Amino acid sequence: MRIRDIEVFDLRFPTSRTADGTDAMHPDPDYSAAYVILKTDADLEGHGFTFTIGRGNEVCVAAIRAFCPFVLGRSLDDVVGNHAAFWRELASESQLRWLGPEKGVIHLAMAAIVNAVWDLYAKREKKPLWKLLADMTPQQIVSTIDFRYITDALSPGEAIEILERQERSKRDRERHLLRDGYPAYTTSAGWMGYSDEKIRRLCQEALAEGWTHFKVKVGASPADDEARLALVRKEIGPGNRLMIDANQRWDVNEAIDRVHALSHFNVWWIEEPTSPDDVLGHATIRNAVRPVGVATGEHVHNRIMFKQLMQAEAIDFCQIDSCRLGGVNENLAVILLAAKFGVPVCPHAGGVGLCELVQHLSMFDFIAVSGRIDDRVTEFVDHLHEHFVHPTIIRRARYVAPDAPGYSAEIKPESRRAHHYPNGSIWKEISSDESR
Amino acid sequence: MRIRDIEVFDLRFPTSRTADGTDAMHPDPDYSAAYVILKTDADLEGHGFTFTIGRGNEVCVAAIRAFCPFVLGRSLDDVVGNHAAFWRELASESQLRWLGPEKGVIHLAMAAIVNAVWDLYAKREKKPLWKLLADMTPQQIVSTIDFRYITDALSPGEAIEILERQERSKRDRERHLLRDGYPAYTTSAGWMGYSDEKIRRLCQEALAEGWTHFKVKVGASPADDEARLALVRKEIGPGNRLMIDANQRWDVNEAIDRVHALSHFNVWWIEEPTSPDDVLGHATIRNAVRPVGVATGEHVHNRIMFKQLMQAEAIDFCQIDSCRLGGVNENLAVILLAAKFGVPVCPHAGGVGLCELVQHLSMFDFIAVSGRIDDRVTEFVDHLHEHFVHPTIIRRARYVAPDAPGYSAEIKPESRRAHHYPNGSIWKEISSDESR
Repeated sequence: MRIRDIEVFDLRFPTSRTADGTDAMHPDPDYSAAYVILKTDADLEGHGFTFTIGRGNEVCVAAIRAFCPFVLGRSLDDVVGNHAAFWRELASESQLRWLGPEKGVIHLAMAAIVNAVWDLYAKREKKPLWKLLADMTPQQIVSTIDFRYITDALSPGEAIEILERQERSKRDRERHLLRDGYPAYTTSAGWMGYSDEKIRRLCQEALAEGWTHFKVKVGASPADDEARLALVRKEIGPGNRLMIDANQRWDVNEAIDRVHALSHFNVWWIEEPTSPDDVLGHATIRNAVRPVGVATGEHVHNRIMFKQLMQAEAIDFCQIDSCRLGGVNENLAVILLAAKFGVPVCPHAGGVGLCELVQHLSMFDFIAVSGRIDDRVTEFVDHLHEHFVHPTIIRRARYVAPDAPGYSAEIKPESRRAHHYPNGSIWKEISSDESR
Repeated sequence: MRIRDIEVFDLRFPTSRTADGTDAMHPDPDYSAAYVILKTDADLEGHGFTFTIGRGNEVCVAAIRAFCPFVLGRSLDDVVGNHAAFWRELASESQLRWLGPEKGVIHLAMAAIVNAVWDLYAKREKKPLWKLLADMTPQQIVSTIDFRYITDALSPGEAIEILERQERSKRDRERHLLRDGYPAYTTSAGWMGYSDEKIRRLCQEALAEGWTHFKVKVGASPADDEARLALVRKEIGPGNRLMIDANQRWDVNEAIDRVHALSHFNVWWIEEPTSPDDVLGHATIRNAVRPVGVATGEHVHNRIMFKQLMQAEAIDFCQIDSCRLGGVNENLAVILLAAKFGVPVCPHAGGVGLCELVQHLSMFDFIAVSGRIDDRVTEFVDHLHEHFVHPTIIRRARYVAPDAPGYSAEIKPESRRAHHYPNGSIWKEISSDESR
């Protein structure tokens, strides 16, 4: 099976119109996907994407196109037979790497392609991605990882040892997963731009649906944050878990003061208290705000940054992102690093399609790497799932293990057409409304 | 004066054909600029660019275009009157920031625009940029800086104190600079792809021109590195300074071993021993390889990373880059951080136009921030200067202070036409040669 053609699309969803996804740094996101279809000479297509929040999605599309010459014409067997080498070819491409290296647009773009390759591979193997990964041997998993720049913290040998420790009991956990699903938390109630009334109603609905972990945006004025948290804590009661997310709003000392002021609400974690680049800042904050935990990752751009967050003991929760890191392969590296350092993986999701993707990685983590499910939860946000061919299924606040082959990445053709930017029907309507 | 139009160009120079600029990670760079012209309603234009090494330059062009709506129509007085606010508007633009934040393509693109604004501003003030900066008061300098995420290491008040300490003696150092120029080192002799004979000849020519600091690429096989260093050390003698540059080739432990093996050549610094993201790795390497110093910066993507390199005592030399950081404003932040932590600023240059730009920042550092010139050198590479309207002038291995108004960023119109990619005459010739 060879990759014969690559189609790239700029898809955008006008989420800013309803304040969905609003936070202290991103008041008006239009959830978007720079979307890739790998066409083959067989009957299968690989679908993948990276996630952005609107403007600049076209820059990711341009970056994906820049990678196409290195992917076109490749056979799938060649790619997955030398998976780490393929990944490094893209990540360290001799001219493109200057634009990163391994960060920002070029890394987001690479994630879209890498994710599409895994979707294709899983479809060919007729397995959902989590199952494909769970069935691989420790050696096969490790052979997909580029260990460049992380060997001081995790060697291939150590990674194999971690995987081998779980090998014998994998089937038990797979049964557990299929029976009970994977625990999730909800961010749907706590967006910055929502009214009190809407937050109250959403909390009540979420409680009725069985949710036990609630995340709320902070980073507005201290009085606003206090009021929003008081509202949510009152609605969810003292027994449920409450997390707060500042979306990078604060400097280090400000973060410490602001978390201290909010910790009386019994906060499980503070997420993105400051710049995602500030490893040492996160370590300082973590030391100061205990027992509130520190979480970050949705903007942590590669395994080298996660390595340092763990080496510096800067985080309590590791929030991998399926599209910020360089696709599945680099997520596997970070999941293994987290297992070595004993940090629970609680992925970032939401956006468009991030839940669909990252559930697979959490499930693999549980079955084959950490073996843990009691100390970790995956984010869930109830937006835009209706656009997916195989949307996530949540039952009583748990992700149901997907059974369709692939990486659940495929957006319906009619949604792709309607949300194509700027010429899809949704955007034409908006622009004609605006010009009226 | 208002910004009425913005032109963006993809300019590329076919440097890979002569192995200029080759190193362990970049065997075939085609030095390129994503180039911006800010057109005004007055007679002046602001020119700026960011630097890449070929493929993907078009992605930076796309990112520059994404910023245009936030710059078009602005008055120069409004921009420079609220300079930090303007900078933050771009760096924290509510949707575009998702693509970074403050890293990779989006930050490179922003640098091009910010640099063009400073070029325009300096031209309007009829001063070369270094002089414009040197004549600003401490308060004015500090008002250009976005301190977000660095206040735990440097407050605006501390920055003003640093600048005030040098205020009274600024004129003496300006005279010193105008008389003696600013010390430089050469990388021109030591590119990876050059033959021994070429390296030998270039060393001899450089010695004859008065060079005293020589940088050589390493990161090939241990035997190759040993041979190249032996060759250069023999040519330059024991009295001149020798620096080595691995361009991120090694993992942490490998870097330590490889530097130990080469330190008998009396190496002043090892540059980019590992990933530019690895703050803790650089600290580990620095501790292990003393008295060889550790230098990095050309891929250090923002002030937050530099802050940590200094907090972790990970570097002996701070290699700011005029186009990797978000233009002049963020470079000022890093120069001030370096002064606070006592780390000499030795900028990265070379590429296309990086020497032209960064000389201004070094000169400002000497006159107004560190007050030091004895412990620092700026890189010089003798390529592509002929394309600039106001090229750098080197006399006896020192940069001569530019006297033309602006940031020395302007590429000659005929060079812009010829190197326009892919339709300029240079590239048409190459593609017709290749198809022959």
